Amino acid sequence: MEKKIVLLPGDGIGAEVINSSKEVLNAIANKFGHSFQFESHDIGGVAVDTHGTPLPDETVEACKGADAVLLGAVGGPKWDQLPSHLRPERGLLGIRKALDLFANLRPVKGFEKLLHASPLKETVINGSDLLIVRELTGGLYFGEPSERRDNGNAVVDTLSYTRKEIERIVDKGFQSAQLRKKKLTSVDKANVLESSKLWREIVEEKKADYPDVEVDHVLVDAAAMKLITNPDQFDVIVTENMFGDILSDEASVLTGSLGMLPSASLAENGVGLYEPAHGSAPDIAGKGIANPIAMILSAALMLRYSFGLDKEALQIEAAVEHVVNDGYYTADLQVENGTLLNTVEMTEQIAKYI
Amino acid sequence: MEKKIVLLPGDGIGAEVINSSKEVLNAIANKFGHSFQFESHDIGGVAVDTHGTPLPDETVEACKGADAVLLGAVGGPKWDQLPSHLRPERGLLGIRKALDLFANLRPVKGFEKLLHASPLKETVINGSDLLIVRELTGGLYFGEPSERRDNGNAVVDTLSYTRKEIERIVDKGFQSAQLRKKKLTSVDKANVLESSKLWREIVEEKKADYPDVEVDHVLVDAAAMKLITNPDQFDVIVTENMFGDILSDEASVLTGSLGMLPSASLAENGVGLYEPAHGSAPDIAGKGIANPIAMILSAALMLRYSFGLDKEALQIEAAVEHVVNDGYYTADLQVENGTLLNTVEMTEQIAKYI
Ligand SMILES: CC(C)[C@H](C(=O)O)[C@@H](O)C(=O)O
Ligand SMILES: CC(C)[C@H](C(=O)O)[C@@H](O)C(=O)O
Repeated sequence: MEKKIVLLPGDGIGAEVINSSKEVLNAIANKFGHSFQFESHDIGGVAVDTHGTPLPDETVEACKGADAVLLGAVGGPKWDQLPSHLRPERGLLGIRKALDLFANLRPVKGFEKLLHASPLKETVINGSDLLIVRELTGGLYFGEPSERRDNGNAVVDTLSYTRKEIERIVDKGFQSAQLRKKKLTSVDKANVLESSKLWREIVEEKKADYPDVEVDHVLVDAAAMKLITNPDQFDVIVTENMFGDILSDEASVLTGSLGMLPSASLAENGVGLYEPAHGSAPDIAGKGIANPIAMILSAALMLRYSFGLDKEALQIEAAVEHVVNDGYYTADLQVENGTLLNTVEMTEQIAKYI
Repeated sequence: MEKKIVLLPGDGIGAEVINSSKEVLNAIANKFGHSFQFESHDIGGVAVDTHGTPLPDETVEACKGADAVLLGAVGGPKWDQLPSHLRPERGLLGIRKALDLFANLRPVKGFEKLLHASPLKETVINGSDLLIVRELTGGLYFGEPSERRDNGNAVVDTLSYTRKEIERIVDKGFQSAQLRKKKLTSVDKANVLESSKLWREIVEEKKADYPDVEVDHVLVDAAAMKLITNPDQFDVIVTENMFGDILSDEASVLTGSLGMLPSASLAENGVGLYEPAHGSAPDIAGKGIANPIAMILSAALMLRYSFGLDKEALQIEAAVEHVVNDGYYTADLQVENGTLLNTVEMTEQIAKYI
């Protein structure tokens, strides 16, 4: 298989972990006889520095022409004081919109060897394995108007959705549940928001199309509680953009190893974008000690979702599992009697297992 | 001191716990020579049943004429299928708006004897003692338009705030911090929302008025993580309505004893409303086994915030502390070698210490 992959290293540790995913993908290409071509482009703070904008047109064009996109991370204190339209995050929001990446998939699953670092008791976190399906291109993030009013004495943002936008993400939620334990939890605030009422109606309508999936509705405030008290009750959670932002970050710390969590952002029939759940970690950038595993697992998701290479994806996931079980770890983690590796060493260790 | 207190028992276990708070307040009145008059009115599902609306006018009028309001809880499966305007929650939202209860204060503090029930490791939860100050009458909850569009093919809700609405809640946040450890965390989503940008500007402006308070800004997604990984970094959190709904419920499960957490909802110069952080618990309603402590501690907050009776409030809080330390508990909790009490027994036990 021949594929063109755009790399968007971005800021902070982005470049370091992107390199790791490239190396692992090369190992996969060798072993399975594929050919992956890589092309790097700028996004985020580094793009502001070199192009005067966090999302240069050529980056968007390159992504549109690619088979898939890997993104490292964006942001850092250097760009925090810039006006909104020049903030690194704008690059991220812009590329999501430009590629119509409406579905953000965030699996949360612990590694037994690392669960000791969970803030939760082992009896609580044990067995948790959930997937958050977050709507990514609608809601409060992109609704208009979003503006000051009355001479700056008032302000509005708009939470807006079309029926079609809700339908496609709800479908993605059901389909994701079908591939897992067939349990879908739809999260909304239907006792307050009109948009949540429509959301809940659509979930109820769609039930008939997925008779094998068990569905329930949970209010967002209750979901925020249940993620902590009883995370293993969840299989797939589907929710709108802002709720998904909050709940997926909440969920990402439950297992105690944020540096291991990948994500996939998918379009309907277009290019997918894959990035780690963690950020740009400016404090350790350039030191060569970042944990590349979330990025490497994001590359695995790319193989699975964008290229249909499930066997290859499983191979990467198995390699990571192996390395972790063998006690190898990076500086963000702690493993008793384990072996501390830097970014390059960890990458090589994983590539070796492939 | 003579005070007129309106009781709104509401649904589920509401009536049982309201009775407990009344009994404890009577004990306080006897001991300190006050006179509290109580008057009960309907709200929520019970009001729908008896008056055809979750918030009868006479309830609103009675609350406006009172010195303070105690509310039990609203809601239950019986009313879940009713159209929105008849849902019990509408009563709650309506009374908040009618009394202009813009500031919801939710303290989260564990009891040493009960921390074993926390989903968090004891090393993580230990020492946590925080207060969430949530804006309660603005934002997505009340913004207009909130409607279907395009023949039901689209929907909008509106997150709107005036500068004045933000200023008064931010002031309340600073003032609350001054009474505690002088640390204020303002939570927003300023990298995405215009309303959050104004919010952050106002917090920055107000800093000068409270030079003794240390302030930082945390994005809502990061706050959802930090509440779990490191709850004891927080003193006072101030945030807008929807973020506050989610984060305060998230925070409420950290200590493992939701049945112990009170809340206060305050107006600028008007009547305050006090209610437990927990809900109406329809599954145990009428069984006489509900934990009355959150409601009793809410009555203590009433004494402190609405009547300025700090000594009396402390007396209730000390009594609760005592009872818990002596190993008394209700069915929602578990205490090894402790004594299980029902609602009435627990109430008497607390009254006895007063
Ligand atoms: C950087 C920010 C705009 C972004 C978001 O809120 O979507 C991030 O928090 C995320 O979850 O990917
Ligand atoms: C019942 C509901 C409308 C309410 C809210 O969202 O404010 C509740 O969750 C709360 O926090 O008091």
